[in-house]
Amino acid sequence: MDQLSTTLSALADPTRRAIITRLASGEATVNELAAPFDMSLPAVSKHLKVLERAGLIARGRNAQWRPCRLQAEPLKEIADWVGRYRPFWEASFDRLDSYLDELQRNDKSDQN
Amino acid sequence: MDQLSTTLSALADPTRRAIITRLASGEATVNELAAPFDMSLPAVSKHLKVLERAGLIARGRNAQWRPCRLQAEPLKEIADWVGRYRPFWEASFDRLDSYLDELQRNDKSDQN
Repeated sequence: MDQLSTTLSALADPTRRAIITRLASGEATVNELAAPFDMSLPAVSKHLKVLERAGLIARGRNAQWRPCRLQAEPLKEIADWVGRYRPFWEASFDRLDSYLDELQRNDKSDQN
Repeated sequence: MDQLSTTLSALADPTRRAIITRLASGEATVNELAAPFDMSLPAVSKHLKVLERAGLIARGRNAQWRPCRLQAEPLKEIADWVGRYRPFWEASFDRLDSYLDELQRNDKSDQN
């Protein structure tokens, strides 16, 4: 699988995204990561392996703790790819805006 | 599955991303989409269904042609999520830059 597909696939899970969000505020051990999710350690470890393979986290060498830390570089490739389509979603939100403006205007003229 | 996970998962495939890229330059029929990929129509249709379920494309009602068009709105959610981590990847590229600068400086002083 290409790098971008691997990154997107690793993030296509709310628990894995929550782990990334948690690591953005600093390193954490597997135990610390497991606590808020009410998940077993093996389940969390499985998610961490997926994130590690995608290069989104790195783990310390200390065998006992092996704290995880965020590696955000692969996210840049997603931002670059998605960013190319910004004019398209901005255009559609603009259309929605004009539509809502129009609705509101019609509403007001109905009330008059 | 939540909307963001569905969108990320739909895009975790190079063919589906290529379809999105193609549709950014205008509507296309399934036949037109299949041509550059050297794929069977059923294989392309399968990819289109995944994109349609994720809300990334819409298909015309004309039964014979049903042209596909891009719907970029779900991409905004990805851009917003990923964008939060921009400071992290910019920081790491900055560190890489300083490291490369340093290497180059050492290289020059070695040559002197």
